[in-house]
Amino acid sequence: MSKLRIIPLGGLDQIGMNITAFEYEDDIIIVDCGLSFPSDDMLGIDLVIPDVRYLEDKIENVRGFFITHGHEDHIGALPYVLRKINVPIYGTKLSMALIDGKLEELGMENMAKRKIVRYGQTVTAGNFRVEFIRINHSIADSAAFAITTPAGTVVHTGDFKVDYTPVFGDPINLARFAELGSRGVLALLCDSTNALKEGFTQSESTVGRTIQQIFDENEGSRIIVATFASNVDRVQQIINAAVQHGRKVAVDGRSMIRVLGTASEVGYIDIPEGTLITLEELADYPREKVVLITTGSQGEAMASLPRMAASIHRKVTIDSSDVIILSSTPIPGNEKAVYKVINELESQGAKVIFQDVHVSGHACREEMKLMYSLTKPRFAIPLHGEFRHRTAQAGIAASMGIPRENIFLLEAGDVLELDEEGACVVDKVPSGRILVDGLGVGDVGNIVLRDRQYLAQHGIIILVSVFEHGSGQLIAGPDIITRGFVYVRESEELMEEAHEVAYGTVIRCQTQGVTDWTRIKTEMKEDLSDFLWKRMRRSPMIIPIIMEV
Amino acid sequence: MSKLRIIPLGGLDQIGMNITAFEYEDDIIIVDCGLSFPSDDMLGIDLVIPDVRYLEDKIENVRGFFITHGHEDHIGALPYVLRKINVPIYGTKLSMALIDGKLEELGMENMAKRKIVRYGQTVTAGNFRVEFIRINHSIADSAAFAITTPAGTVVHTGDFKVDYTPVFGDPINLARFAELGSRGVLALLCDSTNALKEGFTQSESTVGRTIQQIFDENEGSRIIVATFASNVDRVQQIINAAVQHGRKVAVDGRSMIRVLGTASEVGYIDIPEGTLITLEELADYPREKVVLITTGSQGEAMASLPRMAASIHRKVTIDSSDVIILSSTPIPGNEKAVYKVINELESQGAKVIFQDVHVSGHACREEMKLMYSLTKPRFAIPLHGEFRHRTAQAGIAASMGIPRENIFLLEAGDVLELDEEGACVVDKVPSGRILVDGLGVGDVGNIVLRDRQYLAQHGIIILVSVFEHGSGQLIAGPDIITRGFVYVRESEELMEEAHEVAYGTVIRCQTQGVTDWTRIKTEMKEDLSDFLWKRMRRSPMIIPIIMEV
Repeated sequence: MSKLRIIPLGGLDQIGMNITAFEYEDDIIIVDCGLSFPSDDMLGIDLVIPDVRYLEDKIENVRGFFITHGHEDHIGALPYVLRKINVPIYGTKLSMALIDGKLEELGMENMAKRKIVRYGQTVTAGNFRVEFIRINHSIADSAAFAITTPAGTVVHTGDFKVDYTPVFGDPINLARFAELGSRGVLALLCDSTNALKEGFTQSESTVGRTIQQIFDENEGSRIIVATFASNVDRVQQIINAAVQHGRKVAVDGRSMIRVLGTASEVGYIDIPEGTLITLEELADYPREKVVLITTGSQGEAMASLPRMAASIHRKVTIDSSDVIILSSTPIPGNEKAVYKVINELESQGAKVIFQDVHVSGHACREEMKLMYSLTKPRFAIPLHGEFRHRTAQAGIAASMGIPRENIFLLEAGDVLELDEEGACVVDKVPSGRILVDGLGVGDVGNIVLRDRQYLAQHGIIILVSVFEHGSGQLIAGPDIITRGFVYVRESEELMEEAHEVAYGTVIRCQTQGVTDWTRIKTEMKEDLSDFLWKRMRRSPMIIPIIMEV
Repeated sequence: MSKLRIIPLGGLDQIGMNITAFEYEDDIIIVDCGLSFPSDDMLGIDLVIPDVRYLEDKIENVRGFFITHGHEDHIGALPYVLRKINVPIYGTKLSMALIDGKLEELGMENMAKRKIVRYGQTVTAGNFRVEFIRINHSIADSAAFAITTPAGTVVHTGDFKVDYTPVFGDPINLARFAELGSRGVLALLCDSTNALKEGFTQSESTVGRTIQQIFDENEGSRIIVATFASNVDRVQQIINAAVQHGRKVAVDGRSMIRVLGTASEVGYIDIPEGTLITLEELADYPREKVVLITTGSQGEAMASLPRMAASIHRKVTIDSSDVIILSSTPIPGNEKAVYKVINELESQGAKVIFQDVHVSGHACREEMKLMYSLTKPRFAIPLHGEFRHRTAQAGIAASMGIPRENIFLLEAGDVLELDEEGACVVDKVPSGRILVDGLGVGDVGNIVLRDRQYLAQHGIIILVSVFEHGSGQLIAGPDIITRGFVYVRESEELMEEAHEVAYGTVIRCQTQGVTDWTRIKTEMKEDLSDFLWKRMRRSPMIIPIIMEV
């Protein structure tokens, strides 16, 4: 009997990009295919997708994508990866509706067969059987997988929490995890996001009660609520509160409108007729009779609420009678942007409520213990989190009796081979991040990024000279052009001195009989660089250009 | 009788830069003179200092700087501002020692008279009497001021907390605030930092107990502690724990070494002889017999701990037997950098302890209420915090019975005129941020920053052509040079197409008889820009240069 190979290609660090391959003999399945958003040092990059060269090389073995849920860090790279790996996609109804929408937007609707799977159903793909199990998360229709091969059954939790009182649908199918545990689970691949948080994550329905209370206490005000577009249950609860308080509901923000459309189509949101109004109709109702649901709860500069806060939203003006709820918590890295929005809203006199109107979609430590306790895995493979989160989950797994040598903190590209006999990292396959900038996929690499970072810090000075062919005499220039360096009109003296330095270099080279353009360029660059450092302790990028005529 | 004018010139938003002017007839005093660190959009900027034009214009009236404490956001702009406003500086011993060190480093030690003031002492400056009052904060020798003029007494808390069991020195002089309150306080200018945090800030000494416990539990490991260099009491507690556990102490990080030197000189830190060893001597002792105190607890890339984490520290190598304590909490905006350091340390096998080994240096809501209750001010002017913090303090002031119209949320430059009769914003004076880049102060403005941001996002394309004077014929070029755009070697086809576009523009212009260089440059830029947008949805900065020979 062969061994199962588990190969995470992403999802193991600060940036999302979840994608894990499972390989058994000549069959490969891929769980999730997410993107990540660029980190601060990836200047000008729009998004980041995983390197799937390993899968491309084995394209004939790849049986399909299995999608746990519809968040961007789990489905966002599909439009890029499908171009190379055009295999069937399996997912629940809402996940698939979101994927459909994404592909249609790009004119890719005819690509990749797609099959909707219900909780409890099992898909067979070569040597793999993949069972979809109900779990709870911050987006409806999220699934965990029991992945069975001749080498054993592996449980992949996807992103999950335990919600005994979810807003829509049923609680997580704990009984099924228990059954799987009784029959024997080879390995558990478990969400690590909240592994540093004690206790249990609160139920989504607790947020509904908080929102109702805020509506009760602010009857005289217009209410604006910003939240994650994909959290359909959260939006449902806001709409419920609005309906119960006799308020009309307007919706703003591209992703909010898109996700709500999709959720309505598949019947996952219930909006009583006559409730929705357009942004333009807002003005036709008394302020205390409306609710506006928007995007931008992470402070994203171009999203709806931040534009209102900055007074650049074309249709909504904040005033001192507004009550604004941020039903969210800042994702690490977004704190300052979120606080900026709050400051701007409050300085316009609005009341901002932003603490405790949110619960996480991820399991805390006690829920992880529950999952380990039910599935009783032989091997633990913490997934979905930074190293510190996965280390913390490793600690939980150890405390639950799993021997340290059976716990694997994998790196992207690691090939973990396992069966009942044991588990071992046996290989490392190519993996990594591919940067997307506009339509360019992978054409911005480290050198380009390093140049962007340098330009960002120091600006640029261009030195252009024209030399005569043959004689090597300077016949025009050196001219100096700068961008991002100093405000030239207020630095005339400096620019003149810089010109003298550059001119001096050329004359010196000519006097010394230097005719090699490369050497002249190097000397111009060095002389000017020295001058600017001595004069102002700065190091702009210097580009000497010599034209020969 | 005249009115008192209070003019905050900074300290009212996300970036620090605390400086407040007090003006009474022909006398002006300045409380604090801080810098701030650049926000994310201030590319390449080293630091930010306040615009003090208003004070320069009234230089003959300025009687002195009064410094509440030695943090950079309260003293850091002095070396810049003193060049224009060379007046005496008054501060406590440690604050002044830190200022001395700063000025000496810049060869400015002969500038500005400096006078050390003790708690309880009062300095007379024109119509002002300024009394230094003991408070607690995260740096020793912090003071609040009672500022008395014929118009009344104003209390400026500086940055404060109430610590009944401080590590060094006495608790805050609550009795003095009570006395001032009984005699009548016109206005309270109070620290807002923690106005959104319920309860009381814990005593600094609680951290000492936590550190002792961590030392107890990790007897077999080398211990590395990162904390704020300026928190001398914190460092003292780490040293105490080390001494009690028979460990030697090494110190790393430029600011840590500098501040500890200063604190030792003024007798504010007690290090038993034979405790300190150098970094080089670390290797001479068993790992479990040493402690290393470092900087970098905010994840600053060039600081000591982050360099160890990234394995680029020349003298210290992390291994799996290390225990690393982050005795700090991330300042908003630094979260991701701090988590990166933790991930890197843990992935090298080290144990990282970073939760609950820190207390704030700022008052929480109950302490603010205590301050209002003791001083009973007629007017409340929340200072030192973002708008959301100052708004929260305004709420506290209102809950303590101060009428809303007596609470002022000022903007930088606002002139608040007040006396027993009332208070009113009567004027707005110039204020703002001056950016420092290298030795340049104020020569990087919005245009330069906007160019840097554009370059950072999109990179640059330079198009150089040489035209013949008179005939207007193209005789060389157009040559294309790019930086931060694409990796040219892998985009040869694209570069050739771009060249054809540029060449096409020149030929078209010549055919049409266009000889105006400006127009040719504009058309080259537009054509290439259109091409790149259509081809790859990107908009690099395009600089057409024409040389005439």
